[in-house]
Amino acid sequence: MESKISNSIAISFYLLLIINFSIVESSNKIHAHRPCKTLSFYFHDILYNGENAKNATSAIVGAPAWGNLTKLAGQNNFGDLIVFDDPITLDNNIHSNPVGRAQGFYIYDNKEIFTSWLGFSFVFNSTQHKGSINFAGADPIMNKTRDISVIGGTGDFFMTRGIATIMTDSFEGEVYFRLRVNIKLYECW
Amino acid sequence: MESKISNSIAISFYLLLIINFSIVESSNKIHAHRPCKTLSFYFHDILYNGENAKNATSAIVGAPAWGNLTKLAGQNNFGDLIVFDDPITLDNNIHSNPVGRAQGFYIYDNKEIFTSWLGFSFVFNSTQHKGSINFAGADPIMNKTRDISVIGGTGDFFMTRGIATIMTDSFEGEVYFRLRVNIKLYECW
Amino acid sequence: MESKISNSIAISFYLLLIINFSIVESSNKIHAHRPCKTLSFYFHDILYNGENAKNATSAIVGAPAWGNLTKLAGQNNFGDLIVFDDPITLDNNIHSNPVGRAQGFYIYDNKEIFTSWLGFSFVFNSTQHKGSINFAGADPIMNKTRDISVIGGTGDFFMTRGIATIMTDSFEGEVYFRLRVNIKLYECW
Repeated sequence: MESKISNSIAISFYLLLIINFSIVESSNKIHAHRPCKTLSFYFHDILYNGENAKNATSAIVGAPAWGNLTKLAGQNNFGDLIVFDDPITLDNNIHSNPVGRAQGFYIYDNKEIFTSWLGFSFVFNSTQHKGSINFAGADPIMNKTRDISVIGGTGDFFMTRGIATIMTDSFEGEVYFRLRVNIKLYECW
Repeated sequence: MESKISNSIAISFYLLLIINFSIVESSNKIHAHRPCKTLSFYFHDILYNGENAKNATSAIVGAPAWGNLTKLAGQNNFGDLIVFDDPITLDNNIHSNPVGRAQGFYIYDNKEIFTSWLGFSFVFNSTQHKGSINFAGADPIMNKTRDISVIGGTGDFFMTRGIATIMTDSFEGEVYFRLRVNIKLYECW
Repeated sequence: MESKISNSIAISFYLLLIINFSIVESSNKIHAHRPCKTLSFYFHDILYNGENAKNATSAIVGAPAWGNLTKLAGQNNFGDLIVFDDPITLDNNIHSNPVGRAQGFYIYDNKEIFTSWLGFSFVFNSTQHKGSINFAGADPIMNKTRDISVIGGTGDFFMTRGIATIMTDSFEGEVYFRLRVNIKLYECW
């Protein structure tokens, strides 16, 4: 008899463990603020200015009536739409071996201050990472750090969601900038 | 002995409570249709037409071969791409104190009827809200109400998802429109 | 006494069932790789080239400095931005009755190889499907199959997320292509 009761209690405690595990999983979805994966990269953008066709990784493809396609527009570049295919590196050296490509577009969308809106992907095809991470959101460029959304992913990043914190690591006139991106994924499948 | 058994049963019922809590949480993710947060705003778009540089909050930056950058194109504006930085207000008065900015782009994408596709953010930086809500989706403009997706958020809206119901609240020729947006968030962290 | 103990054990096993159910639900969110819904469609894109205004379903609306709006640009179309309103069909025949429209944009974003970035929606308004599915992501066109993200949905596809596998089903010069899209939804509400 004693042993049966002990068994019953033992089962209950065993259940308690399973349940806690279950709660952690569902809480993780709804409340937890610990990332399930973190990644950190740099990417490098060289804007086409009419004279750097060989090195340029991006180009203005849309501009407001007061702008053109080889020089960023007045009023803090408002309305300029840039398409890019930028190398991703692990450190801040543009000559380092790229581990992937940042591909997509950004628009400048504020007349008073530099602000942009981004839609792009990190595309990986190496032994370390295969697949893509998709991003979208507002980038108030003049803030030291700013967050955009990770809205999905494929391959190794299947169905992921999270936040990417962007920092301007270098900014050289109108032609070159380098961003550091710290990715924190909160949904991993 | 009796008390041990009672304990065992008590533990079981205690577990039952925890488990139910757990089920509610995970169900909430998968099946619930009650928003965890609702918000309602207006935003105001004044399109640049070549003569209203001072007041314009948006500009055509891409157009099809048959269009231009100071007048919306024929065929229901098909192909026009507009970048905007629109004030967000709590009521329908464009002169009310803005509580944030709606920043991003829309394209007209149907020759037969006004239809657009939107990618933008609500950006807040007030005592009431800090952070951004990111939106994407098709907007069949002529419908009285239409839904687009909330695909993510940052700050106060960290990782959120949901639905935004858009209503055209005013439409004055080609230059001004005002949208009412009711945001229902179904994933809150 | 025996029966009380048995009850206690019975309750424990009953709990075990509930808990397992709970774990399945939360696991479904975090780890499961079985779609909750699958859909398969074709869509058809006829690019405006200056002479096919009647049949064209898409148009170049942005291009780099070295491009124009009636012919795809050199360097693998880098920088071209295309807006589209394409019919969706259940089979690969463009003349089949459309079951919806694919509406949005894509950009070519690689100088070395055909690669694009897509933001668009499938919009349905039939007895079979009402609502929209929203997509975003990188499309390395030359791969036989490639995945982009389903980032949200409305109506019948309320709050959905998933993966769309794209295959080029036909490609005729610069004017016509047909894509097959297999949609696997992993979050259904």
